[in-house]
Amino acid sequence: MADLKIGVIGCGAIGREHIRRLTGAIPGATVSGCFDIYPQSAAKAAEDYGVARVYDTAASLLSSSDMEAVVLTSPDDTHAGYITEALCHDKYIFCEKPLATSSEDCERIISDEVKRGKRYIQVGFMRRYDRGYAEMKHIISSGELGAPLMIHACHRNVSQGEGFSTQMGVTNVAIHELDACRWLLGEEYIKAQVLKVRQSSRSTRGFDNPQIILLETETGCRIDVEVQCSDAYGYDIQCQVVCEKGALNLPDPAAVVTRSDARVSFGIHTDWSLRFMEAYDIELADWVCAVRARRLTGPSSWDGYAACAAADALNRSRGTGRFINVDMIEKPAIYQDYN
Amino acid sequence: MADLKIGVIGCGAIGREHIRRLTGAIPGATVSGCFDIYPQSAAKAAEDYGVARVYDTAASLLSSSDMEAVVLTSPDDTHAGYITEALCHDKYIFCEKPLATSSEDCERIISDEVKRGKRYIQVGFMRRYDRGYAEMKHIISSGELGAPLMIHACHRNVSQGEGFSTQMGVTNVAIHELDACRWLLGEEYIKAQVLKVRQSSRSTRGFDNPQIILLETETGCRIDVEVQCSDAYGYDIQCQVVCEKGALNLPDPAAVVTRSDARVSFGIHTDWSLRFMEAYDIELADWVCAVRARRLTGPSSWDGYAACAAADALNRSRGTGRFINVDMIEKPAIYQDYN
Amino acid sequence: MADLKIGVIGCGAIGREHIRRLTGAIPGATVSGCFDIYPQSAAKAAEDYGVARVYDTAASLLSSSDMEAVVLTSPDDTHAGYITEALCHDKYIFCEKPLATSSEDCERIISDEVKRGKRYIQVGFMRRYDRGYAEMKHIISSGELGAPLMIHACHRNVSQGEGFSTQMGVTNVAIHELDACRWLLGEEYIKAQVLKVRQSSRSTRGFDNPQIILLETETGCRIDVEVQCSDAYGYDIQCQVVCEKGALNLPDPAAVVTRSDARVSFGIHTDWSLRFMEAYDIELADWVCAVRARRLTGPSSWDGYAACAAADALNRSRGTGRFINVDMIEKPAIYQDYN
Amino acid sequence: MADLKIGVIGCGAIGREHIRRLTGAIPGATVSGCFDIYPQSAAKAAEDYGVARVYDTAASLLSSSDMEAVVLTSPDDTHAGYITEALCHDKYIFCEKPLATSSEDCERIISDEVKRGKRYIQVGFMRRYDRGYAEMKHIISSGELGAPLMIHACHRNVSQGEGFSTQMGVTNVAIHELDACRWLLGEEYIKAQVLKVRQSSRSTRGFDNPQIILLETETGCRIDVEVQCSDAYGYDIQCQVVCEKGALNLPDPAAVVTRSDARVSFGIHTDWSLRFMEAYDIELADWVCAVRARRLTGPSSWDGYAACAAADALNRSRGTGRFINVDMIEKPAIYQDYN
Repeated sequence: MADLKIGVIGCGAIGREHIRRLTGAIPGATVSGCFDIYPQSAAKAAEDYGVARVYDTAASLLSSSDMEAVVLTSPDDTHAGYITEALCHDKYIFCEKPLATSSEDCERIISDEVKRGKRYIQVGFMRRYDRGYAEMKHIISSGELGAPLMIHACHRNVSQGEGFSTQMGVTNVAIHELDACRWLLGEEYIKAQVLKVRQSSRSTRGFDNPQIILLETETGCRIDVEVQCSDAYGYDIQCQVVCEKGALNLPDPAAVVTRSDARVSFGIHTDWSLRFMEAYDIELADWVCAVRARRLTGPSSWDGYAACAAADALNRSRGTGRFINVDMIEKPAIYQDYN
Repeated sequence: MADLKIGVIGCGAIGREHIRRLTGAIPGATVSGCFDIYPQSAAKAAEDYGVARVYDTAASLLSSSDMEAVVLTSPDDTHAGYITEALCHDKYIFCEKPLATSSEDCERIISDEVKRGKRYIQVGFMRRYDRGYAEMKHIISSGELGAPLMIHACHRNVSQGEGFSTQMGVTNVAIHELDACRWLLGEEYIKAQVLKVRQSSRSTRGFDNPQIILLETETGCRIDVEVQCSDAYGYDIQCQVVCEKGALNLPDPAAVVTRSDARVSFGIHTDWSLRFMEAYDIELADWVCAVRARRLTGPSSWDGYAACAAADALNRSRGTGRFINVDMIEKPAIYQDYN
Repeated sequence: MADLKIGVIGCGAIGREHIRRLTGAIPGATVSGCFDIYPQSAAKAAEDYGVARVYDTAASLLSSSDMEAVVLTSPDDTHAGYITEALCHDKYIFCEKPLATSSEDCERIISDEVKRGKRYIQVGFMRRYDRGYAEMKHIISSGELGAPLMIHACHRNVSQGEGFSTQMGVTNVAIHELDACRWLLGEEYIKAQVLKVRQSSRSTRGFDNPQIILLETETGCRIDVEVQCSDAYGYDIQCQVVCEKGALNLPDPAAVVTRSDARVSFGIHTDWSLRFMEAYDIELADWVCAVRARRLTGPSSWDGYAACAAADALNRSRGTGRFINVDMIEKPAIYQDYN
Repeated sequence: MADLKIGVIGCGAIGREHIRRLTGAIPGATVSGCFDIYPQSAAKAAEDYGVARVYDTAASLLSSSDMEAVVLTSPDDTHAGYITEALCHDKYIFCEKPLATSSEDCERIISDEVKRGKRYIQVGFMRRYDRGYAEMKHIISSGELGAPLMIHACHRNVSQGEGFSTQMGVTNVAIHELDACRWLLGEEYIKAQVLKVRQSSRSTRGFDNPQIILLETETGCRIDVEVQCSDAYGYDIQCQVVCEKGALNLPDPAAVVTRSDARVSFGIHTDWSLRFMEAYDIELADWVCAVRARRLTGPSSWDGYAACAAADALNRSRGTGRFINVDMIEKPAIYQDYN
């Protein structure tokens, strides 16, 4: 079976990582073209990883018959436009989170995809491919612990790039929890609220840090997520799902346990890209397989939309002191069978 | 030095436990009298633990010159009355939590105690004497992790007696977290809210279970406490304090780690009285010492009042969907030096 | 019931600790006299803890009718002599480990005790009173994991006093494991061997450090114990019992789990006296109870003898490269019912 | 760069796994032929994973110019013969452990390889590619904990196939520890001894179970390895390296921590192939890379020999009650730079 031919739009850090994966770690895939708004970035990636062609424009890449699928790792606000164009050219799309920067854009994408009658888009919620999250999902689905009732989570991060804002703490950082929690629970959110917290004196960049996110689902499950965007002691992701008969904790990554200097200790990551390295590998390998079989099964544009809708409500709630409704359109049939 | 002579009012489960401790495990104390609304309970306790005298009325015990101090383990709604009377007779008081069942009663007690010019009352917040909590307090106070910003806690319990109500989930169960969190942070609460959660199908007794408590302190620290009053998988107390430079977790009690049947596991308590057994011992020993030195240092009536004020606000917030102010009188000088 | 009147011989560190316990933490006991080879040590202890009388000689204390029981915390090589004399005067004895410094002395003590027809002596193997060890013993005895087959243990210590020797690594340090392992397994040792290991460059005091102890029991159970007498990273006691259906691990003492500086960690003790603090309390309280009931149940002189016999064999095996038989007399009837 | 063309000899369980990996998970490799003593096994594997050609004889595969490298997953006693033949045809070889079934055969292989002037052979000691072991090696090499002094390890397994013997507990099961320990320490063994242990009543297959392995290295490091070949509670691999300033523990694989039924627990594997799944992937990917670069860096035939020599000594020591010398030839220059 011939390799899947893929074009990559966006050759920054995460774009390069995905090109490396697709060319060097995932069988059945070829990166046949790439593009970046900075031509030298595209040229560098092409040279480093052996990509056959560098495109001058995203449009020429998206319309090229040499490509069956595209990976979008460009800036967030370009996702919606590229997706629309890619759909026009019948390309399968792997879009890094977020799907788009507003619920309206997500709804438009969904509308376009629904018109085509089947799924073309997968969103980069890689945590669903992490072994720890997957095991939690498996145990919840087995029903052995009864229904889930609550999730207590935290997302602690070490640093953010230039231009980071309070809103991005929700739309770019906590977005992973917004997806993971509804996926674990198998339910949509109905209410959302973000709370400001006593600020860390280590955070001097002008955005709220930390923040606390509160969510309520259709059946009344409650979720709290502590969000530290920067200046934490490590990249530390915690998630506890409380069910009727027990609680599940996401494991810390396995690390050598050292007994020295009167302490027992093990290391935690500081670099987010290492924390979910294996999940990224499995995610893209799974997507390549699915596209080759012409049947996507990973996180859909609906999932991207749901996370975006919750993020919108959260950002609108800031400072109001109360819960805001999470408004969503009805779920189209093509997304029904996935969770 | 002669033993401290103590009277015990209330000879139910916890009363008997304290009599056992004071007679059999704590040096320097003698239980010279006891009383219970059910005379046979008092008689039984007296016989079992060698208490010299059973009193016919609480009043006669409280006025007896044979007693320097009293332990109140009677029903919650009797605490305030007994305390008032005990103070009239110049007795030192160890009052099991809660100090009283309303903020107003607490304020009256404080007023009485302040008039006497020094502390006479210690409230039974035994967690402050638990080694895990004490170590957390010690690390926070050292400043090595910077200022505390958040607490994530949970209190999961296996069962409750007859007559238990939704409100008691706050006033009798979460009351321990209400004290522990403000003690750990060294701050008072300003806002409080309780949230209803999807109910466990295991809970069929008519009270809300679980509930989630949210608190905000003077400097903006945020606290969330999951409260399961009954039907949990064990008596499981968790507490994570998040500081600027790191997070502290209350340890699970040490237990043998078993590797068998393809699992690694250790046991957790189901009986709350065993979970804090050592803390109760230390607490009462400390109180006996303090009374003998005529200088109380443990949790004060102010602490009992602060927990009660927060519980009041929480119960008033239920169903409102918003935070309620926690109103408190100014802190009298006699409580200033304690935290 | 009147307090048990106790005399303490040896007022050094551990002696003072036991006097403190018996006077300040354990009900039912009075230290009515003490003696030390250095009169000022005895005088100091008497003053600090309120001991009524300082004796000029051990003989006068042991013969005093004012004493029902004695605690021996004098140097190891004095134990045997004091025990003989104490037995003559019908005193109950709590002897800190070791019971004596040779198997021959232990056999003589046993002979003396057997002549008196019942147990008078308890040896200070406090680990049997540690909650972790006790839970392990309980699980093994329950049979739920099948028969025990092996024990892997280690004893790592931070420092030793002047005059410490290679032999003392067995007789004074590993002696606790020698007792704990045979108690956990419920069997006697038949063979023993000590191995020299690559020496730690941190150890410059001239004694072997580390050493490895190997033991075989009657039914073929195997035990290995790593012994670091000094210069370890903490006072770290590990013990894993491997049974037919699973393995049990002695828990680390509960300690706050800190997440900071890209590590998850908790502290371990460096001071041995803190590690088993609670076990010492329970041990002495249990002994006081047992003596008052005139029926000892704790570790017997037989247990002291068995540990000493194993230690003898181990020290004789050093450098031979082979296992040495552990020779013991037959177990007298008065010790049969205890394990 | 063209894919590396590989032939696989032996299409049983592990052979199929490696074919699956090389065709479906590792880029840069093509399995161009396979052979099995049972033709239908080879045919089945070829069909399932798309292998171009099934060979009638191992000789025809080994001499085929269509192959640059071979993977040996045939029965242990065929390894030496196939290797000799493969070397004649200038093929690179990945040989599943053990390299051969006797030290003599290993020495002959080494002699053949040395004559060719460089390394052609990698032995399947996949643990070196496990993240936990690799992190331990990294920490030891950093020197931050001082020199290593001891290793305490255990290997507990659930089941063995037909024909398993006491000797195979060393040569096929503990062989992984024999390699891992000398790799971690960076030293050769000089003495070895195997001890029989009280046998598990769950083991009724006639071979010794458990056994304990003792090893001593050139500088006097001591190693103890508990070996349970079958009937353990899970596939449980433990390894603690004790250095001068601290101890390192191999982590348990990360698994969801469940709090339910009054226990805190996480699962451990029962299937050995899942425990080191990722290590196998990394190992083969690394080998493919190395062969394409014509410079092997993984475990060498010297490593295979060293493990075999230790296994020989261990099996000869059984029943003697003493340590046996581990005799090895001098290390040829072509193996000097690897550890």
